[in-house]
Amino acid sequence: MADKVTIADVARVAGVSRQTVSNVLNTPEVVREETRQRVLDVVGELGYRVNRAARQMRTGRSQLIAIRIDPDRDGINGSVLDRFLHGLTDAAARSGYRILLYTADDDRSEVATFEDLLGAYEPDGFVLTGTHHRDPRASWLLDKGVPFVTFGRPWGEEAAARHPWVDVDGSAGTAVATRHLLDAGHARIGFLGWPAGSGVGDDRREGWARTLAEAGVDPTGLSRATSDAVADGEAAARDLIDSDPGVTALVCVSDSLAVGALHAARSPGLAWREDTRPELPIAVIGFDDTPVARAVGLTSLSQPLKEAAASCVTLLARILEGTETARASAASPAHVLLEPSLVVRQSA
Amino acid sequence: MADKVTIADVARVAGVSRQTVSNVLNTPEVVREETRQRVLDVVGELGYRVNRAARQMRTGRSQLIAIRIDPDRDGINGSVLDRFLHGLTDAAARSGYRILLYTADDDRSEVATFEDLLGAYEPDGFVLTGTHHRDPRASWLLDKGVPFVTFGRPWGEEAAARHPWVDVDGSAGTAVATRHLLDAGHARIGFLGWPAGSGVGDDRREGWARTLAEAGVDPTGLSRATSDAVADGEAAARDLIDSDPGVTALVCVSDSLAVGALHAARSPGLAWREDTRPELPIAVIGFDDTPVARAVGLTSLSQPLKEAAASCVTLLARILEGTETARASAASPAHVLLEPSLVVRQSA
Repeated sequence: MADKVTIADVARVAGVSRQTVSNVLNTPEVVREETRQRVLDVVGELGYRVNRAARQMRTGRSQLIAIRIDPDRDGINGSVLDRFLHGLTDAAARSGYRILLYTADDDRSEVATFEDLLGAYEPDGFVLTGTHHRDPRASWLLDKGVPFVTFGRPWGEEAAARHPWVDVDGSAGTAVATRHLLDAGHARIGFLGWPAGSGVGDDRREGWARTLAEAGVDPTGLSRATSDAVADGEAAARDLIDSDPGVTALVCVSDSLAVGALHAARSPGLAWREDTRPELPIAVIGFDDTPVARAVGLTSLSQPLKEAAASCVTLLARILEGTETARASAASPAHVLLEPSLVVRQSA
Repeated sequence: MADKVTIADVARVAGVSRQTVSNVLNTPEVVREETRQRVLDVVGELGYRVNRAARQMRTGRSQLIAIRIDPDRDGINGSVLDRFLHGLTDAAARSGYRILLYTADDDRSEVATFEDLLGAYEPDGFVLTGTHHRDPRASWLLDKGVPFVTFGRPWGEEAAARHPWVDVDGSAGTAVATRHLLDAGHARIGFLGWPAGSGVGDDRREGWARTLAEAGVDPTGLSRATSDAVADGEAAARDLIDSDPGVTALVCVSDSLAVGALHAARSPGLAWREDTRPELPIAVIGFDDTPVARAVGLTSLSQPLKEAAASCVTLLARILEGTETARASAASPAHVLLEPSLVVRQSA
């Protein structure tokens, strides 16, 4: 391996031309049995590793599934995709595939990387994460007829019917969280979310608003939107609590914002907390059940990431193995929508 | 792609045999110029993707680097390897390599996976993580002559001289942490570590003990060893603090144990804290600067993971590109030892 065995080495030792070795590996039927056997013996003897390349030449299949790995942003929410990636690697191996990683800074560079990968590595398919409105990545792969599945549903009407996807039902999750707080006696339950327009964020806000309205509480004015960092969550929580002293609980779109809300809820600077309701701290629920939630005792919604990853491999393998063609799936794409579960800790 | 173009499709459209197509791709010198051009035109027209397989047949190189991805354990320390993996994927792409992932439950299954991967995917090399005493993985790869580099030095004397490695100097890190606490006026500084015998854990303990001894403080009795979970860290911290009321600060081998120590230090159940030194909380320093450290305000040692990942790719690429042979490196293996840095937050 250090001095890697090449096709030329095999040819030399077997006393045949490189062309003959190539024939044995690619079109064995054109080679005399005796020669074929001699070449194969040398291949085995020298440890020439031909399986992959030869198989790929014959079948046009690489048995590789490609996926992007993201940089960690605040490091809290990034762990979700890392756990998904572990599940995907495991599930893929069980189905005879391996995972090929790539990075990309934005949609455009990801599409450029698709071309590069398809040219150089020929992955059989892709798993896309971080789907969003007007996602150019899905369109590009659809145009080229490259098999793929998304972890995250297609957001926006047109795309919705065109490719298989797996997602976790965020709206169902925040509904469960809100009901948990209502059952514990909270009424004015606030929501800390992301700015409108993100499919995931809007979906999670909807579950909270709907459940609150069903319980007879008007959600108007009880929601704040901010970017996804701990300090932003703290500021938004303070703003909401200051403007509405009736608020006793918060559902948050992410653990990052929830950790910020915990800081705000526990801050000694909030005079009202000591004076007006010393026995009732602000309850906080996060989303994603990250390691940080575990460390700080944050109640949070957990995504079934292992199951989601396994479903992605199943849907993709169905296309790749011809059980379902990309064309057929375009008419009515397969999809799997999973339910998150509430992990109850000290914070709510 | 959905109906993937095969070598047979190219042959049919170009009006030649499959053998001729194969010849054009593998040994173009044996094909007449006119035929060669016609076949290549059809290859381009149909979008037959041949680069990878054909190149691999010719060069015996896959341009793949394989690495294991671990399941998250308590989820706190796992994030370190996730960040390393992102850096590795980035650095590899810049050097013309892609990352192939695999999972394995233990050393034995990892070695079995080596065989499977080498047979089916032919990675050019491996990056091993989690090196430890008597590591059978390194021995196996050395025996087979498979190029690899480890993130983590070889622990144990024999292995030390046989393969290239990249590591972060844990002992230098805990020395910096201990000095930081000494400078802040702490004298009896405890250490929460792992049971003796783990290379990484012993190294980190050594930096603390040496620095304390240099400052004239006898480290005897100031160290506790436990498994790596938050609850274990809390129990070990309580035990140490209870048995030595002079202890005012703790250096911890991991953020998991440090978060446990914070729980112990802040617990209202510890009567001495309120009574005997209300103005002096227990200072705590962790190791790895995980997202959890950021979220709870834990001072921690940060590993330069991006640089470590880039160094791994550089060392491996040198072997793969023949600048350095594995054989030459075995005599005096290249290695890179990086320094961690202290990220100061509220806890110390």
